[in-house]
Amino acid sequence: MRIAILGTGVVGQELGRKLAQSGHQVMIGSRTADNPKAADFVARAGSNASQGTFADATAFGEVVFNCTSGAVSLDALRLAGAENFADKILIDVSNPLDFSKGMPPTLTICNTNSLGEQIQKELPRAKVVKTLNTLNTNLMTNPAALPGDHVIFVSGNDQDAKAQVTKWLGDWFGWQPRNIIDLGDITTARGTEMALALWIRLMVALGTPIFNYNIVTATDSTEKNREHTDT
Amino acid sequence: MRIAILGTGVVGQELGRKLAQSGHQVMIGSRTADNPKAADFVARAGSNASQGTFADATAFGEVVFNCTSGAVSLDALRLAGAENFADKILIDVSNPLDFSKGMPPTLTICNTNSLGEQIQKELPRAKVVKTLNTLNTNLMTNPAALPGDHVIFVSGNDQDAKAQVTKWLGDWFGWQPRNIIDLGDITTARGTEMALALWIRLMVALGTPIFNYNIVTATDSTEKNREHTDT
Repeated sequence: MRIAILGTGVVGQELGRKLAQSGHQVMIGSRTADNPKAADFVARAGSNASQGTFADATAFGEVVFNCTSGAVSLDALRLAGAENFADKILIDVSNPLDFSKGMPPTLTICNTNSLGEQIQKELPRAKVVKTLNTLNTNLMTNPAALPGDHVIFVSGNDQDAKAQVTKWLGDWFGWQPRNIIDLGDITTARGTEMALALWIRLMVALGTPIFNYNIVTATDSTEKNREHTDT
Repeated sequence: MRIAILGTGVVGQELGRKLAQSGHQVMIGSRTADNPKAADFVARAGSNASQGTFADATAFGEVVFNCTSGAVSLDALRLAGAENFADKILIDVSNPLDFSKGMPPTLTICNTNSLGEQIQKELPRAKVVKTLNTLNTNLMTNPAALPGDHVIFVSGNDQDAKAQVTKWLGDWFGWQPRNIIDLGDITTARGTEMALALWIRLMVALGTPIFNYNIVTATDSTEKNREHTDT
């Protein structure tokens, strides 16, 4: 499959590496076609990887990942060209974190809006699915690094797109369908983006970014728990 | 122990009931000494329960729970009288939810401040510990209603006060110390208050408020998981 990765940071590099090494054709996009971080990525990710501008990558991809940092996501997506997203699924992994006022970061937008919503509004022909924005990069592509069940979320207006992304998250990265919670339409991205405020403080309290949320319900049977400890 | 419960809503009534039935002397406080919801509570909770104004209850309590709704918490605490909180632990269970703009609620304050911080600032002589604000009332007093491990958080500036509250949460309600995460000072209340935005959407997606977060780490051993399923 042809996959576009927008953004050359840690998240884009890790998702792109995993996908290229799994046999997908991955083009990583950035502001300039000769971005040195993108060139590094291509050198390490192998023959399935290539690089280009945001617009090159988006035009190339059958599906597009937004891995740009939240503060510049809207700019980057405008550079990619709205027409290049037509009828494509845009998997939005970004968070609107503002590091400019020191640590811990605040959010550039929250409470009555979200970056996921802003992106869907900016790109009405894209099918935006917000996911993977609530955990560390290394866990995105390797959920088995933590024991037992732990969850990620999907938010988006297009039910078929969310179902497709849920399948891809399983096929590409190993996420079990039971551990992918559909929160609802793209406005529910407010929930996962605002949960970053808790995640950041948990990272400090736990002394590691390698953790994730599980959602425990009354119907989680002992059976289910047993199954996990047996694996 | 003499315990003040400020607020006559669902949370105050449930915490007060549990504590009174466990043998504590509970005074529930509200704006007026003859509040009918408080009278109902006293009638149901038995001989250990009494009612009074916010100031009456706070003066009575060796420890104070803020169970008022977040939108009016600062007003209620001012009515309680700052001097009545001197050197006492104030367990803040409130959330700054704003239902005035429809569902789902937004927060009246977030991102760069929190209600927990505002309360600590308003009552400098109180030892504010924010906790229990991330889950349904029925789970606060009965964590065993969900299987296995699931967590709550404490935020506060006074380490001894957090340790004391952690012990009380175990003694009074059955919370295991390993499932109470100390996030840090009172500014970390931003994390748990903002996580309400996710909680609200999970409640809709799951179709129930009876769920809670667990935090899964790489060091959660199979040993630990086995232990839980055996209990």
